[in-house]
Amino acid sequence: MSPRKREPESHRFSYQGLERVIHERARLSILASLLAHSKGLAFGELLELCDLTDGNLSRHLQVLQAARLITVSRDSGPGRPQTVCRITPSGRRRFLGYLAVLERVLHDAANALGTDHGAPTSL
Amino acid sequence: MSPRKREPESHRFSYQGLERVIHERARLSILASLLAHSKGLAFGELLELCDLTDGNLSRHLQVLQAARLITVSRDSGPGRPQTVCRITPSGRRRFLGYLAVLERVLHDAANALGTDHGAPTSL
Repeated sequence: MSPRKREPESHRFSYQGLERVIHERARLSILASLLAHSKGLAFGELLELCDLTDGNLSRHLQVLQAARLITVSRDSGPGRPQTVCRITPSGRRRFLGYLAVLERVLHDAANALGTDHGAPTSL
Repeated sequence: MSPRKREPESHRFSYQGLERVIHERARLSILASLLAHSKGLAFGELLELCDLTDGNLSRHLQVLQAARLITVSRDSGPGRPQTVCRITPSGRRRFLGYLAVLERVLHDAANALGTDHGAPTSL
């Protein structure tokens, strides 16, 4: 083997783009829910979709809001006011960047298993 | 809307299969490297592929070993002995189960964006 550092292989599997604020499972779950519901979701709906406790959901929403990935607002409509969460445009952009890295993880695995058909899911 | 609980949507985005021991980024990185190198990897190779510090890599290898996802052994060959890490058969199985959940995350996102072509990457 050449003594030269194998540059192309260096950090090949480091997946730096998996930023921690998004990668945590509960937050990944919340962001995936909000991506699929562009009009936003009420607190109770998120509770059910993500299977989280009240306290856990509140805590993770605060983290996502502080990172400007989502907004949390008090909407008043015909019924009683509701807490509604929405993904922000930059949150959506960052989440898609994160998902592109997840796609690389799956591709690397498919390559390793010899079942890569070379047809990535295009997001 | 029916007052009945919407069963099919319940926990739809909870991704329970993303088990914490695998999901942590450094450990995901180590497992992806080992899946791609079925003969095992030396400590120094993992350091470079995963872009981790010595201390971090050691710590995460211990966690993965305790969870029986990998083995860490001292191999003696023609040169000086080396620490070699390998994914175990059950580690491989669990990692593939984890990757199947990641695939669902990507599918859900693709569906949300209306770009799902219905052709999952088959692992």
